[in-house]
Amino acid sequence: MDTKGRFCYLQIMAKPIYSFSEKSDIKAISKLRADDARALLGGKGAGLFEMSRIGLPVPPGFTVTTDVCRAYYARREQRKLTHYQLHRFAAQKKTLSRALLHEFVAAMGRLETAAGRRFGDAHDPLLVSVRSGSKFSMPGMMDTILNLGLNDRTVQGLEAQTKNPRHAWDCYRRFIAMFGNVVKGIDKDHFESALRSIKARANIKEDSELSTQSLERLVTVFKEIYLEHAGFPFPENPWDQLRMAVTAVFESWNNPRAIAYRKLNKLPDDLGTACSVQAMVFGNMGADCATGVGFTRDPSTGEKRFYGEFLINAQGEDVVAGTRTPKPLAELQKAMPAVYRQLSGISRTLERHYRDVQDMEFTIEKGKLYMLQTRTGKRTAISALRICVDMVKEGLITKRDAVKRVSCTQLDELLRPVFDSEAAAKHHILAKGLPAGPGAASGRIYFSAARAESEAKHGPVLLVRPETNPDDISGMIAAEGILTATGGLTSHAAVVGRGLGKVCVVGCGSIDISEAKRTVRMNGLVLKEGDFLSLDGFKGDVIEGKVKTKPSEVLEVLLGTRGESGSGLYAAYKTFMSWVDEFRRLEVRANADTPADAKTALALGAAGIGLCRTEHMFFKEDRIPKMLAMILSETDEERYKALQALFPLQKGDFLAIFRQMKGYAVTIRTLDPPLHEFLPRTHEEAEKLCAKWGFDAKKVWAKAQELREMNPMLGHRGCRVGITYPEITEMQVRAILSAACELRKEGQRVVPEIMIPLVGHITEFRHQKARVIAAAEDVFAKYKMRVPYLLGTMIEVPRAALTADEIAAEAEFFSFGTNDLTQMTLGFSRDDYGRFMRKYLEVKVMTEDPFKSLDRVGVGQLVRMAIVKGRAARPGLKVGICGEHGGDPSSIGFFHDAGLDYVSCSPYRVPVARLAAAQAALAKA
Amino acid sequence: MDTKGRFCYLQIMAKPIYSFSEKSDIKAISKLRADDARALLGGKGAGLFEMSRIGLPVPPGFTVTTDVCRAYYARREQRKLTHYQLHRFAAQKKTLSRALLHEFVAAMGRLETAAGRRFGDAHDPLLVSVRSGSKFSMPGMMDTILNLGLNDRTVQGLEAQTKNPRHAWDCYRRFIAMFGNVVKGIDKDHFESALRSIKARANIKEDSELSTQSLERLVTVFKEIYLEHAGFPFPENPWDQLRMAVTAVFESWNNPRAIAYRKLNKLPDDLGTACSVQAMVFGNMGADCATGVGFTRDPSTGEKRFYGEFLINAQGEDVVAGTRTPKPLAELQKAMPAVYRQLSGISRTLERHYRDVQDMEFTIEKGKLYMLQTRTGKRTAISALRICVDMVKEGLITKRDAVKRVSCTQLDELLRPVFDSEAAAKHHILAKGLPAGPGAASGRIYFSAARAESEAKHGPVLLVRPETNPDDISGMIAAEGILTATGGLTSHAAVVGRGLGKVCVVGCGSIDISEAKRTVRMNGLVLKEGDFLSLDGFKGDVIEGKVKTKPSEVLEVLLGTRGESGSGLYAAYKTFMSWVDEFRRLEVRANADTPADAKTALALGAAGIGLCRTEHMFFKEDRIPKMLAMILSETDEERYKALQALFPLQKGDFLAIFRQMKGYAVTIRTLDPPLHEFLPRTHEEAEKLCAKWGFDAKKVWAKAQELREMNPMLGHRGCRVGITYPEITEMQVRAILSAACELRKEGQRVVPEIMIPLVGHITEFRHQKARVIAAAEDVFAKYKMRVPYLLGTMIEVPRAALTADEIAAEAEFFSFGTNDLTQMTLGFSRDDYGRFMRKYLEVKVMTEDPFKSLDRVGVGQLVRMAIVKGRAARPGLKVGICGEHGGDPSSIGFFHDAGLDYVSCSPYRVPVARLAAAQAALAKA
Repeated sequence: MDTKGRFCYLQIMAKPIYSFSEKSDIKAISKLRADDARALLGGKGAGLFEMSRIGLPVPPGFTVTTDVCRAYYARREQRKLTHYQLHRFAAQKKTLSRALLHEFVAAMGRLETAAGRRFGDAHDPLLVSVRSGSKFSMPGMMDTILNLGLNDRTVQGLEAQTKNPRHAWDCYRRFIAMFGNVVKGIDKDHFESALRSIKARANIKEDSELSTQSLERLVTVFKEIYLEHAGFPFPENPWDQLRMAVTAVFESWNNPRAIAYRKLNKLPDDLGTACSVQAMVFGNMGADCATGVGFTRDPSTGEKRFYGEFLINAQGEDVVAGTRTPKPLAELQKAMPAVYRQLSGISRTLERHYRDVQDMEFTIEKGKLYMLQTRTGKRTAISALRICVDMVKEGLITKRDAVKRVSCTQLDELLRPVFDSEAAAKHHILAKGLPAGPGAASGRIYFSAARAESEAKHGPVLLVRPETNPDDISGMIAAEGILTATGGLTSHAAVVGRGLGKVCVVGCGSIDISEAKRTVRMNGLVLKEGDFLSLDGFKGDVIEGKVKTKPSEVLEVLLGTRGESGSGLYAAYKTFMSWVDEFRRLEVRANADTPADAKTALALGAAGIGLCRTEHMFFKEDRIPKMLAMILSETDEERYKALQALFPLQKGDFLAIFRQMKGYAVTIRTLDPPLHEFLPRTHEEAEKLCAKWGFDAKKVWAKAQELREMNPMLGHRGCRVGITYPEITEMQVRAILSAACELRKEGQRVVPEIMIPLVGHITEFRHQKARVIAAAEDVFAKYKMRVPYLLGTMIEVPRAALTADEIAAEAEFFSFGTNDLTQMTLGFSRDDYGRFMRKYLEVKVMTEDPFKSLDRVGVGQLVRMAIVKGRAARPGLKVGICGEHGGDPSSIGFFHDAGLDYVSCSPYRVPVARLAAAQAALAKA
Repeated sequence: MDTKGRFCYLQIMAKPIYSFSEKSDIKAISKLRADDARALLGGKGAGLFEMSRIGLPVPPGFTVTTDVCRAYYARREQRKLTHYQLHRFAAQKKTLSRALLHEFVAAMGRLETAAGRRFGDAHDPLLVSVRSGSKFSMPGMMDTILNLGLNDRTVQGLEAQTKNPRHAWDCYRRFIAMFGNVVKGIDKDHFESALRSIKARANIKEDSELSTQSLERLVTVFKEIYLEHAGFPFPENPWDQLRMAVTAVFESWNNPRAIAYRKLNKLPDDLGTACSVQAMVFGNMGADCATGVGFTRDPSTGEKRFYGEFLINAQGEDVVAGTRTPKPLAELQKAMPAVYRQLSGISRTLERHYRDVQDMEFTIEKGKLYMLQTRTGKRTAISALRICVDMVKEGLITKRDAVKRVSCTQLDELLRPVFDSEAAAKHHILAKGLPAGPGAASGRIYFSAARAESEAKHGPVLLVRPETNPDDISGMIAAEGILTATGGLTSHAAVVGRGLGKVCVVGCGSIDISEAKRTVRMNGLVLKEGDFLSLDGFKGDVIEGKVKTKPSEVLEVLLGTRGESGSGLYAAYKTFMSWVDEFRRLEVRANADTPADAKTALALGAAGIGLCRTEHMFFKEDRIPKMLAMILSETDEERYKALQALFPLQKGDFLAIFRQMKGYAVTIRTLDPPLHEFLPRTHEEAEKLCAKWGFDAKKVWAKAQELREMNPMLGHRGCRVGITYPEITEMQVRAILSAACELRKEGQRVVPEIMIPLVGHITEFRHQKARVIAAAEDVFAKYKMRVPYLLGTMIEVPRAALTADEIAAEAEFFSFGTNDLTQMTLGFSRDDYGRFMRKYLEVKVMTEDPFKSLDRVGVGQLVRMAIVKGRAARPGLKVGICGEHGGDPSSIGFFHDAGLDYVSCSPYRVPVARLAAAQAALAKA
């Protein structure tokens, strides 16, 4: 909120209630910025004011501000009730201040005037709806009460008013049940079983067949249920009803669903909800009545057409309950042409007004249209993209708006693999869960993280767990998809799985996992460890066997495996991404170790390779014997010889990658892992390996034992290996620069950047630098040419960040290794932190996994410090990041702010990183 | 050097040579501060100037400044000779500038005038000595040449001059050998074997029996040897001799001995040496001649008496060579009473002048006394202390001077255990090595660090290795003493062993270790692993069997196991330490886990306990089953019950420690290690343990496997355990405060400080704080009283230092855990860094072990940052350190500068830490 906004806000803060049927209130609210209006009145309230202001037909009413809700919670807090007291005086805690109640009376008075009816009037009663609504849309999370104001007297007034006794009693019984459930927390089942038994006695099936007498009887029974469970009789006084309903709406801000929703969507917990009270209109009073929802554009395809559904003679609940099938809006055109014209005009007005797709609720009472709500329409990823591109073309929004509006999650979804629909049709759906991570994945199932991790080397795997916890993280990373039996959309599996970009189906209650037997039973079938299964993370489907997946449409075009289809989706993507690239400052590179990775990276828009890990090359099956020979060397001479054997292979690796990268920068990291990672971990592995390659198993095992470390993370790795065995660094540099020379001779541009890992002391970097220069000069002399190259370092040890000035004096670029930097700065081993992280998240000692989203306060402080110190020593020092945070949108925002030059992430995250970079730039601008 | 000093220095810098027989030069030098004079002329040169200035009898001469030496090296550097060129043009490299040679001629001219003889004169030749001398005394490390100026002609002039042909030829042959050895690097053995063969031919035993003819013959043979090995004939021209000698003295600055000595004593490598040229005087010309050394006080006891030795009719070499036994100076009083009176007067003058014990060299030539050198006398620890205390009493120095003058190493030596001399007399000395770490130790011998470490739990052990390297560090820490077969006083074992305060004998070449057989052979005896051996680190003796050790005299008095002896040593210690405490600002506490430790700590002057580790209490044999039960608990209920069983034991621990600490602060750290440290490490251990205590071995082993971590250092430990199982923290806090309440009821003051380990996030601290407060309130309610206590945290995770402002807002004190902070800031696992540290030290990537002496640039930066941020958030925040650096004098200097309030170290290091703190305060003042 800027100063001006804050000023307006302060001026009106004292006012607890605003009427959207009062001109002066509408004017006051119209002076607020849209955001502030939503903060004060909730999205629903703000929409009602705005629709009233522009002259749309809105039933009269008023909104109690979120200030009141916050004051309500503050009062409770003030009284400092202990848990015990809270429990005992539960009734007392839920009270509104006396002053507020006076305001209510006044506001209701104005509403009565506007509606032309009196609240609680026995002859022509005013009925109202009481609805929640907060700044951010939280659909279905908080509570709503309809038909409030009914009691044994006013129900007769309603009968008289509408000449429709059945309608009146139907409203009454619905109201009691809704009120009992929302205000007193009485389980809906109690009311429904009473309803069922009356229907059974009357021998009918549909609620609509119930006679007025049965409904009257139901009201009596419902009141008995209410008395029994609430301990008090149903409140006949409409003012009591109103007070209790508003209190209940406030309380619903902190119901478990709402809390979970906010946690999932990272919304703040202290905003509070507003409460709108509005005169009831009825879509269920006859054939000239209807209720429905409309979208200004198709929310699933993004097509520009007025879209929606409606039901003749119905209340809003009926649309939601699904007992009757709503009809497409097009049919309303035939049934009520005038109303349709009016509605369709309103639709255009609202979209133009809000410059975004609107999702509207309306009711037609006796041929008259009422607008009950308008809000920004939720949409699928595909439609989000299309709508933005279309709206820019239509001049409705700017490119800047468009880039801000498509979320990273939506863009990512567009690139997720999908099932080949023909292939999928041939497979059974075995179960259904919650779709927690979009995409399609097939693989062999494993029931433990360890098994999933080790088997992932041999092909795609799915991790199947009752639920996941941080211990499972390595298995989750290794798996293509994750399936859990319990947990909702905010469970560990869902949050972390989605964060990792995994296909994820959670809360699939119908499956029965036996961890001991390593089986899962679903739909009568028993699957064993290693059996195939497929997951559709868009829908939550669990599908039998191995279903062929394919890249998404956009990805296929990007990778060149298909041409553009008629759908225009790729064209929209291309246009959108060109805008993204216009606004971003951060360069986006990819982490790629192979020519295939490099190709994908380029196709997805990477501007180079930010991290090429050379160790992965040595893990290749045929190179193991050569690597082993190197490690087993007992003299420098022997080691040199073994490295000579590896040299041509390494050179080949780099030739292929450079060739693929067509002159884009390639940052190559010298050997990083401890040498024991190349050795067998068990005695059996050693035996097998040695039998195959003809090594002495005893010797290999002894070496493995010798090199074993207590804390390998803080051990003999990174440049420490290069310093102990400088001939390794030399061989790698020779391979890199020989490949570069050979390609330059062919006329290809090559930009090698050599990166030394795990530097903590400038002396370490100097040692390696001397070796790199010596090897480089040697190569250049041999090829009789020079290739420009950069020599830089990873900043991943806290000490490197602390002494970045010293290091930058010698290093030509920095690349933050935020994985290791996080491990050391926090003292968290990524392999072990699951032991306590579960508890940490549970007791809120931490709210976010620091390996997923950068710890800005701690690690971020070191990042900023290193940049400031580094650039002081070497103005214009190039600084990037190649840890896993490089693909995390929130972290990218930080990297933009901190002034990095580039982020590097996995190839498939490149488009998302580009978008995140653009959004960060726009957010700062 | 302050501005004034620097100014003087610059004024005279152009002058390469100063004569200590020229008034104007003496005056110029007298204007320099003593330090600057030593830097310019070396200690020897500065002493000669000063003695000349105050009118003592000094043979005339001059000093070539260290500037010249540095310029000499700079010239060599400038020419940028490659290693190959250096080798080829070895002769060329060692040259002096032409300008300098002109200065030489001039200086020699003045010397000739002063001496009344001419250099190279055939009839009355001037002979000179050429001696090295640098700012810091490096006794015996660099070279000296005597009798320079002799050749076939001048030897006859000397004959004529002295009327002593034998003396002349003896000088000549000595000169050729010395010159050949120093200037041309010819092995002394070549000359000595020639001498031996001539003696054999002449059938005599003593050099002194050689006839003039034999000596003449020897000169001829020595010249042949010279020609053969140097490739050039012996230079007859005295000017060539002089030029070559000066060059050799400069070169000797960088001989391997000198380099090693500087490394050992941490002296800078770029100071260079001065070179003093002085007219020879002869103590070997008859019975009225003598040479000797004197000390102004007894260097071994510190007694105030003129002490020294002399030889009638001898040259300085003879005293050193040990072929004749020198006589005590007292006898000189009888032999030459007048000279003795003069010498004794000079001794008093010099000590008063320098305000420190002087070590003088003198020569008496034909009844005339000449002073050749005066320097600060080296002394034993005991004498250092006594001398300082006496000198303060005599008004010679201030208390401030005294505190600066006793080194931490000397003070430490006073507290080292010694052998019971009666007991030692009964044991054989099996071998002799270099005394690298003072003290006396007995224990069972082990040949690997791992064995030493594991066996140290059962009793004292000695680590016996061919040589040690950083891999052995854990074994070195665990052992009482270290014995190596190879390596000198600068070897790893010597440097690290001494640093760790271990008794250490190195380079014991006569022992024969078989690592494979786990035996060591010495003096015909074969000792097996586990056999007893004893080491005398004062003398370097390796003694048979188990010799009883006892605390040193001072320590015995401190610990109250004996009364003050007549030696007055304890009284001197007490006086000295009272001065130390006057000057220091830093408080010194001790790390103590037991009442016994606490008692020692208090006796040695600790002002409280800075670290009481509660985990050590759980490692006690009888508590293991209870601890096991706690760890094996499957529910909170079970764990609570198990903790209840541990509670009374913990309370007992704290009662005993508080009682012992008599109201001094006790900082207690809640449980820190990962729980798996309490579980068996091998299957066998598990079986044994479970058999003994009746646990299910399978279950215990499974738990051990479950808790095993990849990187335990970064794992589930510290407050992470307390957060996962808050009931552990609660039990400990209840035990601490219940003990405190009970003692307060007895009227004893108790000051508990509760310390939460491994905090990185303020949320962690808050979580534990809430538990601590809850438990405390519970205890206070039970005892119906309150005990004031502090609640603080360790700063050992980098993130804690980075967010110290947040943490200080909640924590009442900080204690740096610099061991862990070093591990994480540098990314060095203390268990593993030996793998590369050996290489790092070898290639000078690092020059110091960061776990011994704090890394000021990196870790120190975090320490300073945490203090600044912490005190900004909580003014006056108490800050201490309880890592091992707390006992390292150099690190203590840093902690003083950084503004810490206290350091905490092991009880026996307390006096040293007090001294280091005082010295740091004085250095800054």
